[in-house]
This record gives sequence, C-alpha cells and structure tokens, in this order.
Amino acid sequence: MHLKEKTISVEKIYDGKIINVTREKILLENNSEAYREVVHHSGGVCILPINSNNEILFVKQYRYPFKDVLLEIPAGKREEGEDPKNCGIRELKEEVGAEAESITYLGKLYPTVAYDTEVIYMYMAQKLSFGEQKLDEDEFLDIVKIPLEKAYKMVLNDEIPDAKTQIAILKAREILINNV
Amino acid sequence: MHLKEKTISVEKIYDGKIINVTREKILLENNSEAYREVVHHSGGVCILPINSNNEILFVKQYRYPFKDVLLEIPAGKREEGEDPKNCGIRELKEEVGAEAESITYLGKLYPTVAYDTEVIYMYMAQKLSFGEQKLDEDEFLDIVKIPLEKAYKMVLNDEIPDAKTQIAILKAREILINNV
Repeated sequence: MHLKEKTISVEKIYDGKIINVTREKILLENNSEAYREVVHHSGGVCILPINSNNEILFVKQYRYPFKDVLLEIPAGKREEGEDPKNCGIRELKEEVGAEAESITYLGKLYPTVAYDTEVIYMYMAQKLSFGEQKLDEDEFLDIVKIPLEKAYKMVLNDEIPDAKTQIAILKAREILINNV
Repeated sequence: MHLKEKTISVEKIYDGKIINVTREKILLENNSEAYREVVHHSGGVCILPINSNNEILFVKQYRYPFKDVLLEIPAGKREEGEDPKNCGIRELKEEVGAEAESITYLGKLYPTVAYDTEVIYMYMAQKLSFGEQKLDEDEFLDIVKIPLEKAYKMVLNDEIPDAKTQIAILKAREILINNV
C-alpha cells in the first residue's frame, strides 16, 4: 500500500548555517508527479535537568521566529554524527553549568514531519552538580527553577508551547511520579 | 534583560507552496550583529479522534523527509487566518471521514522554536459518527485504531516519534483517565 515516494530530481534552494532547503520532484504512489519542499537540519538534543528538590531547571531565551521569550529545557543543535547523549551533556554544561551523575533517555521526537528532517533526542539529568554557564557568543539566557508538579500543570494549562519541553516534562513525570 | 533582537534587514530566500524562507540580519542584546534563518509556515492543526471504545484513530502516512510511514493523529495545514477549530473539524472529516459532537482544545505547540514560525493547535474529538474519507489528490493514508492505553505505552516506549501525536496522546490521557 505505502510505496515510497520516489525522488526524481532535487533543486537546491538554500545552503545555510542552521538549515538547508531543497525542492524535490517526486513520483507519488499513483504515478503522478508532485513537489516536496524539505528543510534539512542536522538534529537536536534536549535535556531536562531535575534537582534533588524535584525542581526542573529551565532556560528562558528570546526566540526570534516568535519575537518572544520562551521557557524551554536546555537544548542545542547536534553536529553531524555527534553522539546525542554527549551533545546533551555538553548543552547541560553550557546552558545551566551543570553536570549529572545520572542521565536517562526519554525518547526522540520529530518536530514537524511534513517538511522538516529534524530529529530531537530527549534526556533527563539527575544528581546534578553545578559550575558556571558557558554560553555561545550569541546566546543570552536566564535559568529558572520550577517544581515538577507546577511545570506539569503549566503544560496542561497551555503555558509552555515548546514541543520538546512539553514532551520531556510529561514523560519525565511518568517516570518519576508514576514509576512507569 | 531580554531585549528584543531587532531586525535590521530581511533577505527573501524562497517563496514556496508550504514554506517561505528568509535570512534576517539582526541586532543582538549586546549590540553586535548576527543572522537568523527563519522558516515561515502558516501553522497547523491536529485532532485526536477517540471513539466510544476508547480507541484512538490514527492515520499512517508516508512522510517524505523521513522516507518512512509514520503513525500520526489527523492533521493539516491551516490557511492564513483560518479558525483552528474549524480547520480541525475539516481535517477530521477529510482524513478519517468522521464528525464529532464534542471537541476539546488540548493546547498549542511550537514544533521547533529556533528557526520555524509554525504553531500547531491540538484538539480531541469525541462522540464520533462516520462517513467517507475525502482526501486531497496527493494524500494517501490508512486509518489505524489503537486503544488509548496502548498508544500511551507506545509514546513512553519511543514508538511514536511525531511530536504533535505524542503531546496530544499524553494530554488527552490526562483528561480522560486522570481527570485533570
């Protein structure tokens, strides 16, 4: 039933710093031709740090596409071929200055499946110790601590729009509170 | 603390069918200049249909960026200015041939906040009645019914990567099972 959509030709639209964009001519299942616009991204990692008081450490960061400051868990772009867990450990250190004795894999997510290749791997970090933030030159962010149960209610109340942050909170809570 | 990143100039990269892409020169908080690549998308809606047997109706669809068939709840692109709930009702009818007496708002999500303007609104549809699928010309999808508790476990087990589908299942279950 689900034959692959076959690539006929690829037009390169943009070769950028964060994304590449292509417009690809394809053959559909019914043998007619169509075009797919594809954003290529090397993927990301996010990591939910939770301290011994059951508080999650968030970062607040200005996000240009939304012209707004958003509440997110620490995250970053994964370099081509970089191990996702190592990337999470690096971002935890850079963004909140923390190291973790325990890191748990929370699963992956595809942010927007119709036109973007990005995959984000999610982790939870526990047993934290703290040093200093080591931000990139163009990063400006504040750290905010919020108790797990409050963060969970914020997700349910539509107060945390970022997809990776919503999923990581809901999954971490299932592990920590409901022992699944 | 969080001054806006000020737009200095906008270079149009691509004006497509699903996405537009710009490269924007901005002024950072520290008064240095930087560039932001932005994917502009008119946004989407997804709707989780659940029948009287507590089964969720999913669609399985080939997703070209992943070269794979993915399990998702029904969803579609929102036209500029279209009411999200009406868009959800339309997609429910088109993709699974269903109408719903009860529709509950589940919140919104920003799929990938660093470079994409897309917002997806989530709904849950209950008290369903069924007619025929009315797919777009280039849509090919199968309907799959999965019990809510099984779907929830699939999310926890990293078996459903699509972000909107993960969040909608976890939030719908909180409402339906845990009465939050």
